[in-house]
Amino acid sequence: MFRLHPQLSKFVTTSVARRFSTVGKPIECFSAVAWKPETDFSKPAVSLEKIIVAPPAENEVRIRIDYSTLCGTDLQAAAGKDNEAHFPFVPGHESAGTVESIGPGVTTVKPGDKVIPCYQAQCFADDLSKDQCPRCRGYRKGKTNLCGKVRGFTGAGVMRAGGVRFQGAEGQQELHHFMGISCFSQYTVIHEESAGKIRDDSPLSKAPLLACALPTGFGAVMNTAKVEAGSIVAVFGLGTVGLSIIEACKRVGATRIIAIDTNPEKFERALAWGATDTVNPKEHDGPIQDIIIKMTNGGVDYSFEATGSVDVMRAALECAHIGWGKSVVVGVAAGGAEISTRPFQLVTGRTWTGTAFGGFRGREGVAQLMDDYMDGKFDIDPYITHNVPLRDINEAFRLLRAGESLRTIIWMHEDPPHIGAVPA
Amino acid sequence: MFRLHPQLSKFVTTSVARRFSTVGKPIECFSAVAWKPETDFSKPAVSLEKIIVAPPAENEVRIRIDYSTLCGTDLQAAAGKDNEAHFPFVPGHESAGTVESIGPGVTTVKPGDKVIPCYQAQCFADDLSKDQCPRCRGYRKGKTNLCGKVRGFTGAGVMRAGGVRFQGAEGQQELHHFMGISCFSQYTVIHEESAGKIRDDSPLSKAPLLACALPTGFGAVMNTAKVEAGSIVAVFGLGTVGLSIIEACKRVGATRIIAIDTNPEKFERALAWGATDTVNPKEHDGPIQDIIIKMTNGGVDYSFEATGSVDVMRAALECAHIGWGKSVVVGVAAGGAEISTRPFQLVTGRTWTGTAFGGFRGREGVAQLMDDYMDGKFDIDPYITHNVPLRDINEAFRLLRAGESLRTIIWMHEDPPHIGAVPA
Ligand SMILES: [Zn+2]
Ligand SMILES: [Zn+2]
Ligand SMILES: [Zn+2]
Ligand SMILES: [Zn+2]
Repeated sequence: MFRLHPQLSKFVTTSVARRFSTVGKPIECFSAVAWKPETDFSKPAVSLEKIIVAPPAENEVRIRIDYSTLCGTDLQAAAGKDNEAHFPFVPGHESAGTVESIGPGVTTVKPGDKVIPCYQAQCFADDLSKDQCPRCRGYRKGKTNLCGKVRGFTGAGVMRAGGVRFQGAEGQQELHHFMGISCFSQYTVIHEESAGKIRDDSPLSKAPLLACALPTGFGAVMNTAKVEAGSIVAVFGLGTVGLSIIEACKRVGATRIIAIDTNPEKFERALAWGATDTVNPKEHDGPIQDIIIKMTNGGVDYSFEATGSVDVMRAALECAHIGWGKSVVVGVAAGGAEISTRPFQLVTGRTWTGTAFGGFRGREGVAQLMDDYMDGKFDIDPYITHNVPLRDINEAFRLLRAGESLRTIIWMHEDPPHIGAVPA
Repeated sequence: MFRLHPQLSKFVTTSVARRFSTVGKPIECFSAVAWKPETDFSKPAVSLEKIIVAPPAENEVRIRIDYSTLCGTDLQAAAGKDNEAHFPFVPGHESAGTVESIGPGVTTVKPGDKVIPCYQAQCFADDLSKDQCPRCRGYRKGKTNLCGKVRGFTGAGVMRAGGVRFQGAEGQQELHHFMGISCFSQYTVIHEESAGKIRDDSPLSKAPLLACALPTGFGAVMNTAKVEAGSIVAVFGLGTVGLSIIEACKRVGATRIIAIDTNPEKFERALAWGATDTVNPKEHDGPIQDIIIKMTNGGVDYSFEATGSVDVMRAALECAHIGWGKSVVVGVAAGGAEISTRPFQLVTGRTWTGTAFGGFRGREGVAQLMDDYMDGKFDIDPYITHNVPLRDINEAFRLLRAGESLRTIIWMHEDPPHIGAVPA
């Protein structure tokens, strides 16, 4: 593989940035915008238009987004079912790109760096010259990946330094950020704490899968549940995250992997990914948890919920084995929905927990996962089913809503070699 | 201390058993009986009368109960709020006694042995000559204390070998067992798997505290939550179990122990036991979880629910810190009650779990706890507030319902030196 000497590479990158002279200036570019909740699926989910992206303020990074992918969370957000989607906003949270410029005070990335923007930010717990948040400090360090430093701002759709960095090219209306990422714009501005630097030889067209889906599934198994070899597991929901859970369970040596979905068309992939059994709740009378308890002679060691339905979350808990069964909530439920069970389920030794970004610390996590990918520890291609250019982003929404796609790579600046389904 | 040589001791015990000649015969003795659910607290909770206790059948042990204690679970059972209390039944599950005789096939205890009857039975996972249950076998061994071997029978109020061993002395009506123990009778019959042998020098008048309350609290902290030194904890409910949770948290080095109860009269003891803060939810507006999150600048590392209220269980979960807070359900809720929360509470890193008998394996647990007690690792006396003879057992019910007692020792065969409150 051809690689420039690091010093030369840095020189070239810097020169390019200077030649285009966008540094310090607003950038006009194309972006998807969600102006209002759209629940009519016959209409486009988002609007495609020109927006203006302001330069990064203090401790911010402006990024050229090269590739994005679409996730179920974006569907919920566009439909107005996510309390942290503040209309109008620039959607998207799975992407990879290149640092275009940095604001004052930024020290951990530089122009030209390849990055995965991380919705789960990570503050500088080891760098005492930077602020640390209480969740990453002291004895609590390492207890969670849920850094709180910019969380209040990303949840409100604004930047820590104040305001937003997006406005419509026509009418000048300000647009909110989303999950601190907003990667369905060709350029975006994020907090330095969200900029996950990845190695220079990272393939950016595959990297968006490491921004959400795969870390969530892999980490739910390896970091949160800590599934051991020989375990019996149940996986509810066979989308991209469900499949990545199956993959991880197989990798750690689970001997029985029960894949559950109401859409039997998903079973073929589940079996190819490593599932040993498939169950369609629609084909059974009675609660699905009872079916699985019967199948496994007492219940599963670990269960994973990757649908976002609170009823499925209950089923996942209750099919876990008395005494030690652990159930991990991975799916994101609609705002206001609640989970319930009889406390006897817990008193008799079951554990109910959950995971966000699979328990990986944001910036360290994506760098490590990219290293693992480059070392051949897992493959990304099987999860990429379609490619579309940015102008076709609503087709990506349609495919995901219809359950026809896993991840669709959205090419943000150019046309993919093949538009639509990946050739077999 | 005067002790017989072990061989001589065995000889004396055997001689006594032979002299009384109860072996193989029914025993008529006094017992408390719950004939029907009694929710009118102005009436006696249980009836005191003569019953007939059959000899032990195969793999059963008949025990002379020397001392019992009364627990909140008995209150619920007598009031008809426990689905596993099958009227009429002989109540009681916290006691210590002496093996009177053994049925065919019993090998792990012998007449004269001191035992704590264990409602959490434990099968013979290491003795291949005996049956093992699927929960204690193979790779699952050690994953749970919830042995399943006799569970189906003890939950139904009968014995594994068939039928019951109690009947009323008048009218001959059969009486159910309760929790596999029924220790409010002067003699009882239990499964061998429930007979927790303790050392010969064990003080039987203190041992009933090791049958339920103290293991539950200590184990919730040490086995289930695994609280570390430096932790911030919240304990909801300041009865005997809540206090034993506080004691264990202090022993493992928790630096802040927040004790919560709606009865402020319980705060003095909580502080004496090691609590650093007390909170009465009645003195605050708004949900108690919000108060505790504010007090602790984000929530507690571990919370424990020892009231049995599903609303308190929710509060206990939700006052746990985002990212790592773990909440342990210890209290037993009324049948049919359900716990609820938003799944976001789990997805953001909280864990909801529970414990039965504190995660201790039944027979091994009581033997180990008695050794620890005899080694001076903890004290039992502070939890004993009253003594009554068996004929005054309804006074023990009254004291516990009124929140006036911790544990009342019920002297099953003789009068205590002091009847009523323990002299200061
Ligand atoms: Zn996502
Ligand atoms: Zn942080
Ligand atoms: Zn008890
Ligand atoms: Zn067992």
